[in-house]
Amino acid sequence: MALSVGLLGFGTVGQSVARLIVERNDGLLALTHIFNRDIARKRVDWVPPSVVWTERVEDVLDADVVVEVVGGLDPARRWHEAALDAGRPIVTANKQLMATHGHALLARAAQRGVDLLFEAAVGGGIPVVRGLREGIAGDRLTTVSGILNGTCNYILTRMESAGLAFDAALAEAQAHGFAEADPTDDLEGYDARAKLCILARVGLGLDLSPLDVPCESIRSISDDDFVYARRLQATIRQVSRVAIVDDSVQARVGPALVPLTSALARVIGSQNLIVAGGTYGRETTFAGYGAGGFPTAVAVVSDLLAIARRAGGAPAAWPDTSQPTSLTGLQVAPYYLRLVVRDQPGIIAGLASIFATHNINIDAVLQEPGGTKERLPFVITLEACPTAAMDKALVEIQTLPFHVTPPLCLPVLA
Amino acid sequence: MALSVGLLGFGTVGQSVARLIVERNDGLLALTHIFNRDIARKRVDWVPPSVVWTERVEDVLDADVVVEVVGGLDPARRWHEAALDAGRPIVTANKQLMATHGHALLARAAQRGVDLLFEAAVGGGIPVVRGLREGIAGDRLTTVSGILNGTCNYILTRMESAGLAFDAALAEAQAHGFAEADPTDDLEGYDARAKLCILARVGLGLDLSPLDVPCESIRSISDDDFVYARRLQATIRQVSRVAIVDDSVQARVGPALVPLTSALARVIGSQNLIVAGGTYGRETTFAGYGAGGFPTAVAVVSDLLAIARRAGGAPAAWPDTSQPTSLTGLQVAPYYLRLVVRDQPGIIAGLASIFATHNINIDAVLQEPGGTKERLPFVITLEACPTAAMDKALVEIQTLPFHVTPPLCLPVLA
Ligand SMILES: NC(=O)c1ccc[n+]([C@@H]2O[C@H](COP(=O)([O-])OP(=O)(O)OC[C@H]3O[C@@H](n4cnc5c(N)ncnc54)[C@H](OP(=O)(O)O)[C@@H]3O)[C@@H](O)[C@H]2O)c1
Ligand SMILES: NC(=O)c1ccc[n+]([C@@H]2O[C@H](COP(=O)([O-])OP(=O)(O)OC[C@H]3O[C@@H](n4cnc5c(N)ncnc54)[C@H](OP(=O)(O)O)[C@@H]3O)[C@@H](O)[C@H]2O)c1
Repeated sequence: MALSVGLLGFGTVGQSVARLIVERNDGLLALTHIFNRDIARKRVDWVPPSVVWTERVEDVLDADVVVEVVGGLDPARRWHEAALDAGRPIVTANKQLMATHGHALLARAAQRGVDLLFEAAVGGGIPVVRGLREGIAGDRLTTVSGILNGTCNYILTRMESAGLAFDAALAEAQAHGFAEADPTDDLEGYDARAKLCILARVGLGLDLSPLDVPCESIRSISDDDFVYARRLQATIRQVSRVAIVDDSVQARVGPALVPLTSALARVIGSQNLIVAGGTYGRETTFAGYGAGGFPTAVAVVSDLLAIARRAGGAPAAWPDTSQPTSLTGLQVAPYYLRLVVRDQPGIIAGLASIFATHNINIDAVLQEPGGTKERLPFVITLEACPTAAMDKALVEIQTLPFHVTPPLCLPVLA
Repeated sequence: MALSVGLLGFGTVGQSVARLIVERNDGLLALTHIFNRDIARKRVDWVPPSVVWTERVEDVLDADVVVEVVGGLDPARRWHEAALDAGRPIVTANKQLMATHGHALLARAAQRGVDLLFEAAVGGGIPVVRGLREGIAGDRLTTVSGILNGTCNYILTRMESAGLAFDAALAEAQAHGFAEADPTDDLEGYDARAKLCILARVGLGLDLSPLDVPCESIRSISDDDFVYARRLQATIRQVSRVAIVDDSVQARVGPALVPLTSALARVIGSQNLIVAGGTYGRETTFAGYGAGGFPTAVAVVSDLLAIARRAGGAPAAWPDTSQPTSLTGLQVAPYYLRLVVRDQPGIIAGLASIFATHNINIDAVLQEPGGTKERLPFVITLEACPTAAMDKALVEIQTLPFHVTPPLCLPVLA
């Protein structure tokens, strides 16, 4: 008997999931219900006529398993609770919900003895959730890092390769469907942060609250920064990272300089890449297409097949999690500081004295040709120093009178 | 109740598996039996005193699950059969056995209703077997390719980066424990071929016989070839690839030119990388440390945990497989042909006329400085042509009188 599947949401991912199930036609999965608001306009002729189209969530609970691909915290959370309480396993792509309420929902699923699977919530078609939970379960992982947001990566790699300004790269990403009309969640790092919290749960057994993870925007990256980065044999990526360091946890999402030779630098366009660092297996990497209807639907259907094939066994076991006793951002790093100033005597001397006060060593001062007296960009690189010291120095630097645009400070990752 | 684990084999991998289980100490797994020949000399003091050390395989069948990390076809096959017939699930790292007798053993395991898991047989700690079987099960995969042998990759990347000759790089690999005293299986491609057959089974549902997959040695690669490859913006890797093309299957293991910008070129040292190409999710990449006791043990322990957590459910479902109606090597490719000749007039004209006969177009002729009249290396690159045509041309070229060493012909991968 095929597992009957009810879809909550018939947007980009929902339609692709329906397509995959219909095209597979393998006797394991059968699409039986499609729920959406204003359902009439959603009807398509390529799903079997037996499918029930509905605007009532309860109808979908008649299916063996519920796929939630609507998104958002509410009403999605209530739907999840209702489905679990009715003994229905759930497969979802909803990263915000899993990042924010994953702990409670997984506990509820375990109580009811049903599955709540969410491979699609991180890295689209890349099987990293299962990879961390099962594939390298035998290791003791201490770090998870990577490029988790395809929109940011598309924008940054277009700035890098075509020399586009930020706004032009964003407009291009929107025109190509790689960025939404309101790109806030992507650019500010909220989307990547939700995914990072999910990976921290699955890989490191950490129960993080997304709002506690420091997040920096990529909006302040300029095309100049790519010129300087290249001079430093580096480029700029939105990097998400969580690490267990002794008894504390460090996590951060935001732009950073990464060496051109690193795996992160080589992630192009809307791709994603995740690196897990373990005690025994060293580094394991997962990469691929992190978004888009079909890659995401592959993850949803893979989860459905896992449920179909489980054949009465216990649901997937998720690792026990605990809240970290201490959660901070990055603690120590070398830094890249880009300034755009009105030229005047004593600028470097003033900066140098601030750094000296905070025990921060200057590594190099770089200036590309092409600036004007009225608008002079240059870069100072700083040796590894405590982030707290750098933050204090920055506050003082920002009060100096010569800035044309606010200074940009990025960590330099090894 | 912890799952009791019996080990067959206490060598590199077996000892690491034992260490991981002992160090986890998490109540899920308990090491109870260790089997090896001449067991007395194998005893170590860091395993619990309750462990039974034995030279009798039958003793190990008292454990809940058997880990086979001896290797080879015989007697391993008989041990597998005995364990499955006794209703014991098996976890193994034995790629030769799974490549050659995987079909029969998996059928036997299914009949007995027990698991036969082999994540460790391919890519060490990289969870690619599970990734293909479950993680992207929802996709329809058509290709699997990658770098599956860390020994070859170590040798080739050392030739590339340090300019070593083949023999020097091999000696270095042996000194560092990256190559065995008898490196035949690695260099000739037999090891990678076994892994490729396992991935073809798990990812593409193909039942291939390793002996049917064309395999070429890396022994004939010289340091000169890396100089020419670099001029072509490429490098040389041992590449394993299987693809479903219409109704037939193409598979090959052997050295090839790969672009410097490709993911394959960036796999350094003893690392492995596997790329799966699908209809819906496009390309998904898995990478990490493909060998070594601990990474391999991570895969074994991950499989053990999957069995421990399954808690009475059905064993893992493997895809149905079928034998290909047609299995060939590469069918069409651009080629790199390196010759070392005694210089004389008319060499190029003679080669050109052979290529013309076979309808093969010359792309370029390259010659680096430094050759002598007595030993003159040069390279001809050829536009994409049928492999059959290239093979015929090569036979004729080999009979020409001016060769100092046999010509080397490598496909150029996109
Ligand atoms: N797209 C991707 O590449 C991707 C990748 C990974 C994960 N995800 C996740 O997958 C989920 C779905 O994403 P998507 O791209 O498919 O979004 P989408 O195209 O906006 O689809 C959402 C669907 O849900 C419907 N919907 C929204 N609110 C509803 C409500 N209150 N009641 C009933 N129906 C409602 C929408 O109907 P209307 O047509 O009326 O708006 C739409 O059909 C999200 O959690 C997202 O984060 C997406
Ligand atoms: N090493 C790796 O990095 C790696 C990676 C992936 C997969 N694998 C696979 O893992 C398996 C084990 O590899 P390994 O590197 O651990 O090999 P190994 O170090 O040679 O260990 C094999 C062990 O089995 C014992 N043994 C061999 N034949 C036996 C027999 N007939 N009866 C009883 N005991 C026997 C050996 O005993 P002696 O000490 O008496 O020889 C040795 O202790 C192989 O299938 C290999 O392909 C290895």
